Amino acid sequence: MLTYLEKSLPNESFIYFGDTAHVPYGNKSADTVIRYSQRIIEFLLTHNIKAVVIACNTASAVACQKLRNCYDIPIFDVVTPSVMHSNNISITRKIGIIGTRSTINSGAYKQSFSDLESNCTIIEIACPLFVPLIEEGWSDTSAAREIARSYLEPFQGTGMDTLILGCTHYPIMAKTIQEVVENHVQLVYSGKTVGYKLSSYLQKNRSKNDIGSSSETQFYVTDYPLKFDELGSRFLGRKMEHVKHISLS
Amino acid sequence: MLTYLEKSLPNESFIYFGDTAHVPYGNKSADTVIRYSQRIIEFLLTHNIKAVVIACNTASAVACQKLRNCYDIPIFDVVTPSVMHSNNISITRKIGIIGTRSTINSGAYKQSFSDLESNCTIIEIACPLFVPLIEEGWSDTSAAREIARSYLEPFQGTGMDTLILGCTHYPIMAKTIQEVVENHVQLVYSGKTVGYKLSSYLQKNRSKNDIGSSSETQFYVTDYPLKFDELGSRFLGRKMEHVKHISLS
Repeated sequence: MLTYLEKSLPNESFIYFGDTAHVPYGNKSADTVIRYSQRIIEFLLTHNIKAVVIACNTASAVACQKLRNCYDIPIFDVVTPSVMHSNNISITRKIGIIGTRSTINSGAYKQSFSDLESNCTIIEIACPLFVPLIEEGWSDTSAAREIARSYLEPFQGTGMDTLILGCTHYPIMAKTIQEVVENHVQLVYSGKTVGYKLSSYLQKNRSKNDIGSSSETQFYVTDYPLKFDELGSRFLGRKMEHVKHISLS
Repeated sequence: MLTYLEKSLPNESFIYFGDTAHVPYGNKSADTVIRYSQRIIEFLLTHNIKAVVIACNTASAVACQKLRNCYDIPIFDVVTPSVMHSNNISITRKIGIIGTRSTINSGAYKQSFSDLESNCTIIEIACPLFVPLIEEGWSDTSAAREIARSYLEPFQGTGMDTLILGCTHYPIMAKTIQEVVENHVQLVYSGKTVGYKLSSYLQKNRSKNDIGSSSETQFYVTDYPLKFDELGSRFLGRKMEHVKHISLS
């Protein structure tokens, strides 16, 4: 996700906040995810920020509306941009969505398609084992393919031509997912779609930094767990530097 | 774990505290696990308890000593009883231990064998995907067998005859684990061994309840996540009744 945002906005500085003491959010209740998200936004607000991206589909799905009601800062979720993009590109008008159990159960994608008055049929499937498989480096194994085949079997024969990867981890498992669904199915990456939306917003509000502005990315985490560096590199494609530990409880 | 304790001590009442807002502990840092454990013990101490069982191998491994230094109540960990039992039963003197990454990295099992001046050789392997596989009901699938075969491969040819299931989730996956290791390998269940130790302690201190005492189990959780009832039944073999939600943060 961060990589996509940095690519979309190469002259902006980012503060990456990883709530590593509380992850994974995917199986937690909405109330708990909202409470954690509020604490994070309050921390970020002390850092002179222009906007917040909730770079987690579970938090986007269950906490975003509540957070927008609480804070004045523009808050971008990772659900809406993917829904708009999918609605624009689907030819068969059959769209699949995969995510954590919390994301799917929240009904946020269904609501978002409904808000667009979309004529697409959506098919949603929770894939709770994908995150641990990805975090443990098992994305491209026959065990992962077996699990993916089992989870994604209900998509067979539906005519789906577009599949939203509704969890920021899933792009790492895209190859396995693409092998299991039919070849012509287009995968939609929320990092790309929200990066585009954020860039447009900053442009429109004349708050986008010019070419040549100095930019940096700061990292904050609530826990510095084992294998953090390895995990960071897997997601970011580079080493996270100067990671600061912070407790929000 | 609770099932084993209830069987060992049918006349005692239990308070089961599930820190569901913060699980899994297995990949978190020692400092974070200690902080969470302290809050839980402080809550339990308000309930007129006779003893505490840290029914989690990760917390036992990384937090137990610190907790014993902080509180007067007898605190039982789930590491030591399994180590003592394994040390007594192993004929080849080669013992395997499997657990979460935190448990294995803590070195708690190695320390516990060393404290016993055991002449056993121990071989430890972290199996981080077992907990999510178990929680998602995939314990007895070919994907689980593939993952187990890959994790447990280093045990082959070592002469190991005893394998400690060093995580309270693992008994649910015992069938798959037993299929992957050699037939004669005995699996050691920490629930059974700590149940026996707690029972002996209460007997010795004349604080064990008599036959016919009324007993009950109360359940507290820090989050009431999706699928909680299904998970509870999987671990407990019965429905959890009157579960109370409590926030410790």
